[in-house]
Amino acid sequence: MKYRIITIEREYASGGSEIGARVGLELDVPCYGKEVLERAAERMQTVPERLIHLEESTSNSLLFSLGMANRVALGERDGLTEEGELYVVEEQVIQDMALQGPCVIVGRCADYILRDKADCLTVFIHADMKFRAERIVREYGEREQSPEERLRDKDKRRAAYHRFYTDMKWGYAQNYHLTLDSGVLGIDRCVETICALYR
Amino acid sequence: MKYRIITIEREYASGGSEIGARVGLELDVPCYGKEVLERAAERMQTVPERLIHLEESTSNSLLFSLGMANRVALGERDGLTEEGELYVVEEQVIQDMALQGPCVIVGRCADYILRDKADCLTVFIHADMKFRAERIVREYGEREQSPEERLRDKDKRRAAYHRFYTDMKWGYAQNYHLTLDSGVLGIDRCVETICALYR
Repeated sequence: MKYRIITIEREYASGGSEIGARVGLELDVPCYGKEVLERAAERMQTVPERLIHLEESTSNSLLFSLGMANRVALGERDGLTEEGELYVVEEQVIQDMALQGPCVIVGRCADYILRDKADCLTVFIHADMKFRAERIVREYGEREQSPEERLRDKDKRRAAYHRFYTDMKWGYAQNYHLTLDSGVLGIDRCVETICALYR
Repeated sequence: MKYRIITIEREYASGGSEIGARVGLELDVPCYGKEVLERAAERMQTVPERLIHLEESTSNSLLFSLGMANRVALGERDGLTEEGELYVVEEQVIQDMALQGPCVIVGRCADYILRDKADCLTVFIHADMKFRAERIVREYGEREQSPEERLRDKDKRRAAYHRFYTDMKWGYAQNYHLTLDSGVLGIDRCVETICALYR
């Protein structure tokens, strides 16, 4: 099959964003990560800095969430929480990006949002705690919380976010065409493997 | 990293065995699938036909199983069920195969059995129901049970077998270095991807 779009979901600090950016460079197609948030902010007439804390976030109230999930599924913005509204706008941004031509999209449930497009290659990147803990410190510096705790928090949030909006099991191989362990294989081999399958 | 061994776990009828055999041919290393059962039968002084129904099988009694799991973990054969004994013998066969040199091993929890070997590339192959249903009829013919029911039965057995002996979640990306959707990517691309990562 000839692919047009590559979606990359990734465990926090597994190198998924770097892999996406390098795949984009290698294939000479744009890679969208934080650009999704930036375009959503434009459409919501605000700045990304005011929205960033809402990404990968879900309401804690189950009953409230159930009602919201229906409205999100229908693409309705009225009566949504701020998180829900951001999700709906990002969904539209991602659909528009996919229409504009070949690209790589990192995170933000793009695999699910574009699930009915036959020309998507869906990828999941993961790595063990040790690899990601070293990476999180190198990339984002030390914090009061230990790297392992920060990763566990992030993992939990990301899995909950995905379950809420997509009803897919996070990290389950069957959801993806390709999954790669960036810790064992290394970033370079991950980039090569994705590019080889795309071509 | 330079790999010596490739282990391939696979959903039933996803083409994992064919992929394993072709990877072996391509890399000029032996591929062991049913050969594991054949060698185990030799060591147990019987014929494979008498053991085949015990493969990927686990006792239904939970309490009994818990006791057995401990003995299996210690590699003890005394007091085991027939299934448990076969698992322990196959485990030894797989460890010996891995010592003999580079090879591909398909199924039989080889990924778990060789988990402490740093030079293993662990692969999981899956595909959707439609792809596998067509394949099961083409390869094994029609049966009274529908192809979908046969697949669901097999999936359930294989997942239970893995959980019992390895305590790993079946089909979970984090358990593998590489997972591939053979239905979407096709058998040829799966073979190429594995060979490229091995080299």
